[in-house]
Amino acid sequence: MIDDTQLDGFHEECGVFGILGNDDAAALTALGLHALQHRGQEACGIVTHDGVNFYSHKALGMVDETFNRSDILTKLKGHIGIGHNRYSTTGEPSLRNVQPLHGDLDDGGFALAHNGNLTNALTLRGELMKKGALFQSTSDTEIFMHNMIRTDTTAPIHDRIIQTLSNIEGAFALVCIKNNQLIGVRDPMGIRPLVLGKLGDAYILTSESCALDIIGATYVREIKAGEIVVIDKNGLQSYQLPNTAPKKFCVFEYIYFSRPDSHYGEGADSKSVYQTRFRIGEKLAAESPCEGADIIVPVPDSGVPAALGFAEASNIPFGYGIIRNHYVGRTFIQPTDKIRHLGVKLKHNANKPLIEGKKIVLVDDSIVRGTTSRKIVDMVRAAGAAEVHMRIAAPPTRHSCFYGVDTPDESKLMASKYSVEEIAKEIDVDSLAYISMGGLYEAIKDKRTNYCDACFSGDYPVKLTDHLNRHEKKAISSLARGA
Amino acid sequence: MIDDTQLDGFHEECGVFGILGNDDAAALTALGLHALQHRGQEACGIVTHDGVNFYSHKALGMVDETFNRSDILTKLKGHIGIGHNRYSTTGEPSLRNVQPLHGDLDDGGFALAHNGNLTNALTLRGELMKKGALFQSTSDTEIFMHNMIRTDTTAPIHDRIIQTLSNIEGAFALVCIKNNQLIGVRDPMGIRPLVLGKLGDAYILTSESCALDIIGATYVREIKAGEIVVIDKNGLQSYQLPNTAPKKFCVFEYIYFSRPDSHYGEGADSKSVYQTRFRIGEKLAAESPCEGADIIVPVPDSGVPAALGFAEASNIPFGYGIIRNHYVGRTFIQPTDKIRHLGVKLKHNANKPLIEGKKIVLVDDSIVRGTTSRKIVDMVRAAGAAEVHMRIAAPPTRHSCFYGVDTPDESKLMASKYSVEEIAKEIDVDSLAYISMGGLYEAIKDKRTNYCDACFSGDYPVKLTDHLNRHEKKAISSLARGA
Amino acid sequence: MIDDTQLDGFHEECGVFGILGNDDAAALTALGLHALQHRGQEACGIVTHDGVNFYSHKALGMVDETFNRSDILTKLKGHIGIGHNRYSTTGEPSLRNVQPLHGDLDDGGFALAHNGNLTNALTLRGELMKKGALFQSTSDTEIFMHNMIRTDTTAPIHDRIIQTLSNIEGAFALVCIKNNQLIGVRDPMGIRPLVLGKLGDAYILTSESCALDIIGATYVREIKAGEIVVIDKNGLQSYQLPNTAPKKFCVFEYIYFSRPDSHYGEGADSKSVYQTRFRIGEKLAAESPCEGADIIVPVPDSGVPAALGFAEASNIPFGYGIIRNHYVGRTFIQPTDKIRHLGVKLKHNANKPLIEGKKIVLVDDSIVRGTTSRKIVDMVRAAGAAEVHMRIAAPPTRHSCFYGVDTPDESKLMASKYSVEEIAKEIDVDSLAYISMGGLYEAIKDKRTNYCDACFSGDYPVKLTDHLNRHEKKAISSLARGA
Amino acid sequence: MIDDTQLDGFHEECGVFGILGNDDAAALTALGLHALQHRGQEACGIVTHDGVNFYSHKALGMVDETFNRSDILTKLKGHIGIGHNRYSTTGEPSLRNVQPLHGDLDDGGFALAHNGNLTNALTLRGELMKKGALFQSTSDTEIFMHNMIRTDTTAPIHDRIIQTLSNIEGAFALVCIKNNQLIGVRDPMGIRPLVLGKLGDAYILTSESCALDIIGATYVREIKAGEIVVIDKNGLQSYQLPNTAPKKFCVFEYIYFSRPDSHYGEGADSKSVYQTRFRIGEKLAAESPCEGADIIVPVPDSGVPAALGFAEASNIPFGYGIIRNHYVGRTFIQPTDKIRHLGVKLKHNANKPLIEGKKIVLVDDSIVRGTTSRKIVDMVRAAGAAEVHMRIAAPPTRHSCFYGVDTPDESKLMASKYSVEEIAKEIDVDSLAYISMGGLYEAIKDKRTNYCDACFSGDYPVKLTDHLNRHEKKAISSLARGA
Repeated sequence: MIDDTQLDGFHEECGVFGILGNDDAAALTALGLHALQHRGQEACGIVTHDGVNFYSHKALGMVDETFNRSDILTKLKGHIGIGHNRYSTTGEPSLRNVQPLHGDLDDGGFALAHNGNLTNALTLRGELMKKGALFQSTSDTEIFMHNMIRTDTTAPIHDRIIQTLSNIEGAFALVCIKNNQLIGVRDPMGIRPLVLGKLGDAYILTSESCALDIIGATYVREIKAGEIVVIDKNGLQSYQLPNTAPKKFCVFEYIYFSRPDSHYGEGADSKSVYQTRFRIGEKLAAESPCEGADIIVPVPDSGVPAALGFAEASNIPFGYGIIRNHYVGRTFIQPTDKIRHLGVKLKHNANKPLIEGKKIVLVDDSIVRGTTSRKIVDMVRAAGAAEVHMRIAAPPTRHSCFYGVDTPDESKLMASKYSVEEIAKEIDVDSLAYISMGGLYEAIKDKRTNYCDACFSGDYPVKLTDHLNRHEKKAISSLARGA
Repeated sequence: MIDDTQLDGFHEECGVFGILGNDDAAALTALGLHALQHRGQEACGIVTHDGVNFYSHKALGMVDETFNRSDILTKLKGHIGIGHNRYSTTGEPSLRNVQPLHGDLDDGGFALAHNGNLTNALTLRGELMKKGALFQSTSDTEIFMHNMIRTDTTAPIHDRIIQTLSNIEGAFALVCIKNNQLIGVRDPMGIRPLVLGKLGDAYILTSESCALDIIGATYVREIKAGEIVVIDKNGLQSYQLPNTAPKKFCVFEYIYFSRPDSHYGEGADSKSVYQTRFRIGEKLAAESPCEGADIIVPVPDSGVPAALGFAEASNIPFGYGIIRNHYVGRTFIQPTDKIRHLGVKLKHNANKPLIEGKKIVLVDDSIVRGTTSRKIVDMVRAAGAAEVHMRIAAPPTRHSCFYGVDTPDESKLMASKYSVEEIAKEIDVDSLAYISMGGLYEAIKDKRTNYCDACFSGDYPVKLTDHLNRHEKKAISSLARGA
Repeated sequence: MIDDTQLDGFHEECGVFGILGNDDAAALTALGLHALQHRGQEACGIVTHDGVNFYSHKALGMVDETFNRSDILTKLKGHIGIGHNRYSTTGEPSLRNVQPLHGDLDDGGFALAHNGNLTNALTLRGELMKKGALFQSTSDTEIFMHNMIRTDTTAPIHDRIIQTLSNIEGAFALVCIKNNQLIGVRDPMGIRPLVLGKLGDAYILTSESCALDIIGATYVREIKAGEIVVIDKNGLQSYQLPNTAPKKFCVFEYIYFSRPDSHYGEGADSKSVYQTRFRIGEKLAAESPCEGADIIVPVPDSGVPAALGFAEASNIPFGYGIIRNHYVGRTFIQPTDKIRHLGVKLKHNANKPLIEGKKIVLVDDSIVRGTTSRKIVDMVRAAGAAEVHMRIAAPPTRHSCFYGVDTPDESKLMASKYSVEEIAKEIDVDSLAYISMGGLYEAIKDKRTNYCDACFSGDYPVKLTDHLNRHEKKAISSLARGA
Repeated sequence: MIDDTQLDGFHEECGVFGILGNDDAAALTALGLHALQHRGQEACGIVTHDGVNFYSHKALGMVDETFNRSDILTKLKGHIGIGHNRYSTTGEPSLRNVQPLHGDLDDGGFALAHNGNLTNALTLRGELMKKGALFQSTSDTEIFMHNMIRTDTTAPIHDRIIQTLSNIEGAFALVCIKNNQLIGVRDPMGIRPLVLGKLGDAYILTSESCALDIIGATYVREIKAGEIVVIDKNGLQSYQLPNTAPKKFCVFEYIYFSRPDSHYGEGADSKSVYQTRFRIGEKLAAESPCEGADIIVPVPDSGVPAALGFAEASNIPFGYGIIRNHYVGRTFIQPTDKIRHLGVKLKHNANKPLIEGKKIVLVDDSIVRGTTSRKIVDMVRAAGAAEVHMRIAAPPTRHSCFYGVDTPDESKLMASKYSVEEIAKEIDVDSLAYISMGGLYEAIKDKRTNYCDACFSGDYPVKLTDHLNRHEKKAISSLARGA
C-alpha cells in the first residue's frame, strides 16, 4: 500500500523563471530566482541554452549560496535561461529531484521547470513505465519529459506541448527550452501562477511579478489559463490548450504564497497582494471585531498586512508585539534534552512591554496543524498578555491541496478535526475567528468562481485520480537519497 | 602615515554573551549568539571551560552555520562559556581576529570577548611591544590579553581586571573566563551595553536582553558603568573600576543597534527599544509634521517602529511602501557591467500600488553616507510616488564614532558635509527633517547627560588619544589575510 | 559533424564491484572500490538495496574522500551493493554521469554499473530516442537502462539481460541489482575483466582480484566471456549470452591497468600480473638487450616489474634512477608564465647520483603520445645520464581502443605517426625497442587468439559501428556541465 | 602532573622552505612544500612579504589541497616567502599551531617556521609567562617569537637571532622573515637539516635537496651546525651561534625521513640518501645473511633501497612481495565491528604468487612499536610464505627522540622492552637481525661522532631539561581544539 508522499516532492510550492533574448540570461535568472526565494529554499537550479549546447547548475541550498560565484554564472552561457526554486519538504532532499530537468530527445535537448503538482502522476508513471519510460527521479515533473519525447517531432512546438499535456491532470506552470525557444504553459484552469514581462527586447516568464521588479523589467500580463506562449527571436506566439477550462486561480497566492509587493490576477483585475491582504484584515475586523482590544499584533511576517487592515478598520493601534529573528537558517542547534524544556525561541520573541497586561488581537494568515499557533499564544501569555484573541485572514483550512501546495494530510489539519470553538480551546485563545468565504472574495474584489479554494471548501476543480485510486497503486521503489 | 582603519576590525559593533553554571554552556551560548546575530554577521566563536581545560571553536560565518552540528557543541565541554559575534567590516575578514581570544598565562588560561573599541589602542600597542608583547592579531582586543598577563597573579581577579584596564581608554563591554570564574566588565562610562540575567542557578551576561529571552532566562539588571562582576559557583561579587565616571550609555543602541524586543537602561529607567523608537517617531511627527501626506512608509526594518509612531501621531495611515527581501546573504551575484545599469534591487522593492501617485513620508533611523537613501528615494519615485518626504528618527550623524561603532570617516558623513537643505537636494526629497536633540531625549525619557551622543554632537566623553596623535604613529605591519 | 568525444565519458577505464549476502554491503563495497582506486579517480558511487528500497551516494572525488563518514555508509542500507570508480577524463566532469545508474522500471528499481564502452552507442541512442527513450546523461551506460526497460518483465532476469544486450556492441563488464538479485555480465568476448569471489556466504563480483584481498575474500574464478551470473540468497546461477564468442580478453590489463597484486585469466591460466610483467621484461631483455648498460631504471610505478625482469635477465643492476612523488593530487598549482619555464617536476625527480655519467636503460610500460617520455628523457639527461636507452614492455601502441580504454585518437599516437627509429629521435633516446607481439604472448604464456590486442595490431574483434558511421551521426545536445 | 605530549605538536618532524629574490615566492614555496610533503601531511602554511606587508595562508590538509587555487597564491604577494609542512600527530590538530607563525614586533612584523623540538620548552614557557609573554598556541615554536621580541631592536638581525636563541635548548632548523631579509638558522649541532640553494638570483633554504630539484634550483651547500645565514637583495651573510658545537646531524634522515632522491651531509660528505640506504642493505646482508632465501621483499616504500642492496649483496632475487596502495588518505572508512575481524588491508596487500611457499626476507627501515611489523608478517604468512625472516636497516630503536621526531615514549618502543630474540617471537618471524651501529656508519661512510643517534644509543647530545624536570612542571591549560 502506497503513501502518496513516497513520491518525494509530490506536494510542493515552487518558483519558476524564464528569459529569452538577453546574453546575461543566467545572471538575470539568478536574480529572478532570488526574488522568488520565499517560494522554495531547499534547492535551486538554472539551465541555459546558447543555440547549440545546454548548460546546467543545480544544488541544494538557497540562490545566493548557489549562484554567488561569477565563474558559475559565466559557464551558464546563452541567451535563454530557465530556473527553479524548490520548496523545502520534510523528507530528505535529493539532488536528483532538483529542477530544471534536462534530457536529450531525438531532435535535441529539452529543459523544463515546473511549479505545481500532477494529480494523476502515479497513474501516468505506471503507464509510461509500461511503454518503456525510464524514471530516474522520484519527481512527478519527469512525466512531462517522458510525454514530450513521445510527441510528433515534426509538429510545431505548441502542438507538441499540447500532445505532452493531453493526458496530464493537475496544476502546473511550466517554463521550457526547446529548439531555441522559450515556452511557458499554464494549466487549463491556470491554478498555478505565471506572468509575462519584458526587459528591453527580452521576454520573461515568472511565477510572480516581484521577479520582474528586481531586474527592472516591465510587467506585461498574466499568462491565461490554458495558455501556451512560444517565444523566440521573432517574438511571442500564443496558443491555447484544447482542454482550457474556466480559470480557477489559486486563492492561497493572495493569502500566503506571493510576496506582498507582487500583484496577481488578470488584466484590470490584477490585485496588489499587499492591498488584498489589507482588505481581508478590514473585512475580518468588520465580521469579527474585538471590542476593547488594546493592540492588534501581527504574527510576522505574513500576518502583517491583514493586521494593518484589521487595526485600521477597528481603530485600534497596530504594534509589533512579536519580533521575528530573520537569521534563522535551515539547520540549527538541536537542543539537547537538558535544554529542550526551556522552550527555546529561535524564530519569534514576544515584545513584552507592548503586550504585558493588554488585551491583544493576534492576526495570522492561516492555521494549519495548530502547533505553531499554540506556541505563539503560549509565548504572548508568558509575556503577560491579559487576553489573547486570534483572527485568521483566511477561512478554516479543512482540506489538503493536491495542486502543488505542501499541506499535510487532511487528518492532520486542525480545522478538519475541530470546530472553531474547539480550536480556540486547543490553542488557548480567548476568542478565535476566521474570515468568511464571502468576506474573503469581497476583499479580493473578484467572483469566487474565478478561484480554486479547495483547501477551504473541498471543491476540487481538477480530478484527483491518484488520490481516489490510492489503494490500487503499486509501491514505487524510491531511492531514499541520492547525489 | 597611518590610517586607523589599517588596524583591521578597529571600528566595529559586536555582541557578547557569557554564562556560568549550566552544563550546556556551549549550546546556551550558541543560542544567545543567535539572538544577537544582528550585532555582527561576519564571524562568531565560543570558548568554554570545564574547570581544567579550555575548548574553542571559531569561524567566519553566522551562528547557525558555525554551530549547527551537535558534534561541535559536544566538544565544547564545560559549565562556563563565552561567545562573540563579529561585525562585518569592509576589509577582508581574517580568522586571526575572530573572538573570543584565548591565551596561556602563567597561572592558567584566560579567555576574553570584547564589544567596543579602544581609543588609545595604537599607543598601548606600541608601548606593549616595547615591553615585549607579541601581537599575533591586528585586533585591539589583544591589548586586554597582554595587559592581563602583566598583572599581579597573586591579586584577586577583580584587582587584576582593574590593573588590566588601568591604562586603557575607550569603550568596552567584556566577558572573560579565568580560574573557573566568569567575569563581566563595562567601561567606566558604560558606553557599550552589558546586562545580567539568570537561568535557574546559572548567571548570564549579554549585550542585550533579547538573548535572555531566547533561552527563557530572567533579566536581572544592567551592569553599571565601571562595574566588574565576578561570578563563580558561590555567586556574584560586584566591584567598581576606580576610574568609574558618570554613565554615558550609547544612545545609538536605542536608535539602531538593539533589537526592538530588547530593553535598555538601568533600573526603572530601562526602556523598551521598540517603544522608544515609537516615541521618537511621535516626537518627530510633532516637530516636523508632513501635512497632507497620504501614507507613512518605513524604510524596513529599522525604520518601522518610528514610522508607526509618526503615523499614529500624524493620524496618517502607515503602510509598507517598501518591501524587504530577507534572503539577502553576505555574498551574491556580482552583476556584470551589462546588467549593472538595470539597477538591480536585491534588498528592497517598492510596493507600487501603495505609493503610486501618493505623497509619501519615508521614515528611516539615520542617514550615514546618503547613498542608500538616494537609491531608496529613486526607487519610490520610479514607482510613481508624487511627493517624497523624509523624516529621520535621529539627529544628523555628523561625527565618527570611536567607541565601537563602524561609522565612516567624518569626511564621508553626509551631515558633516551638507546642511539639511543640501542633503534634501542630494537625496532628492521634497522635504527632510531630523528629530531634534531635545526631542530625542524627551522620547527616551531620560536626561541627555546619561548618554554618549558624540556621533550627533561631537562631544566625545572619552579621550581620542590615537585619533589626536595620528600623525605620530608608526605603521603597523599587518597581515593582509591569514587563516 | 560530431566528435565521438562529445559523448562525455565515451572512452574510459573504470572499476566495478558488487556484493550480495552481507549486511555491511556498503562498507565492503567502499573497501572494494578503494582497492580498485587505480582504475578511476574522478568520481565514485555506491547503490545498495535492502529488499525494499534502493539507497545511493555518488560524488566527484576519490573513494576515501567520498565514503569516509560513517553516517554516509550507515544510510546505505541493505545486503546487496554495487559500486563504481570512474576514470578521470580530460573533459569537465559531471555528476550526472557518475555511476551506478539507478532507475524505476515498471516492476521495480534497477541499478547498474558498467566498465567498458559500447561501439554502437550513438546508433542505439538515436534509435532509442526515436522509440521514446529520454536520455538524462551523456554516458553510453544509460543505454543499458533503456534497453532493460524494453524487455519482457515476465521473463526471468537472465532472459531480460540477454534481451537488454541483444543489440549492444562493444565491451562491457556489468554489475546490476534487480529484484533482490546481484547480476554480473561480461561481454560476449569478455574483453573487460570481471572476477567472482566469496566472503563467507556472500558473493562478490569485481574488476580485479585485489579487491577480494582487501576484505579477506576468496577468489573463485573469472566470469567467462559472455557469461551472465545471477546471484540471490539461494546461490549462483550461470547463463551464457547467445552471441558468446571465443574469448578476447584485453591484453592491456596485463601491461598497465591491473594492479600488480591482481591475477588475470581463466582457470589454471590465471596469471599473476606482477609476474607476467616481470617475464615481459625478461623477454624484452632477450629480444633487445642493451649491452654495457650500467643500470636498469624503471619509469615508476608501472614500469617497475618489467624493469626488474629486464635487469635480472640482463644481469645488470636495477635501480630507482627516477623517484616518484605519490602526493600528487588531481589539481595543483597552475604555474604562472614566469615559472613555467623552470620545468617544474611535480611527479617525478631524477635520482642523480644513480644515473650521473651512466649508460642507463629506461623501462616503461608503453608510449602513447610520447610527450611524457620526452620529459622523462630530458630529466635524466639533465641529471647527467651519459646514454639513455629505452625499452617498452609492450608493442607499439598504434591504434585507439574503442572498448573502454581512454586512448587518444589514432592521429595523436606517436607509434601511429612514426617508425621506431623516428620515435627514438623524437624522444631523444640513444636506442629504443618495444617487445615483439610474439614475445609478449610468450611472456603471458597463452595464445594470442585469447586476447584483444587491437591497440597494437588494429585487429578489432568487435565491430566499430559508431566509428565507421561517424559522418552520418547527428550531434547530440550535451550539457556542458551539470550537478 | 604533566605529560609532555600535552603540549600539542611537541614532538614532530616537519619540513621548512624559504626563498628570497623571486616575485613568484609564494608559488615556488608551494612547490617546495609539495616536494617536502612526506615530512608532514597534517597542515601547511605560507607567509610572504613584499617589503611592506605580510601575507599568510594556512590550513589543515596537504599542500596540493591548500594551495591549488591561483587566487590564493596571487594574494600571497612578495619576493620573500617561507613555508612549513606539519607532521600528523595523533592528537586533534589545531589551526592555532599551524606554522609559519607571524607576529607584530615593535620594529615590524616577524614570521618564522620551525622544524625540530625544544628540550627546555616548558621551562622557557614558564619563564616567559612570568615575564609577561602571552602564549596563544600550544606549540613550542611560539617561544622563538617571544624571545625575539625581547631582543635589542637596535642590534643587527644576526645578533638578535643569537639573543633569541641564547637560552633555547634543543634541535631546530628555522626560516624567518624580518626587515626584508630571509634568515636561516640551524641549531648549534645541526641536528635538524637545512640546505641552501639558488635559482637564478634567488636564494633558497629548505629541509631537503629534493625541494630544490622540483623548481630546477641548484644545490649550493648544507647550512652548517650553528650557522645563521642572513639573506637580502645584496646577498648572503653567514654568522655562527656562539654556542656552536661539533656537528651532530640526525642519522635518521638517512634511514627514514629524507626522500631517497635527496642528499644529506656537508660538502664532499653529502651522501645520496638512496645510495646510503642501499649500502646499509649491503652491510646488513654481510652481517646477517639469510642463506637459502628465495626472495628479498621490501616493506614498501621506505624499505626498498635497503632491500635492493641486501638482494644484490646476497645474490638473491629482489621482488615486490608486498604491494602498497598509494591512495590511502588520512581518513577512511571506520570498519564496523562486524567487518573489523576481516583484517581489512587498506594500505598493503601480499603479492601471493611471489611469496607462496617461499623462504622470504622482509627488509624494513625500522621497528618502532612492532604492531605494524606483526601485521605485515601475518599477511605474508597468510599468503603462504614458508619462512619469514626480517632484516632491519637500522639498529634497534630503543630510545625516544626529543629533537623533533615523533617517536612514542620509550616504554612503548619494542626494542626497549625486548631482546632481539624476543622481538622475533613477538612479531612471529623465523629470524630477525638489525644492522650493527658499526655497520651503519660504514654504510654512511662517515664517522659516528658527526651524528646524533640517540634513538639507538641513548647518547643525547643536547640536555633534556624538560624531560628531566618533568615532575616539577605545572600543567599548562591547553585548548583541546581551536579554529
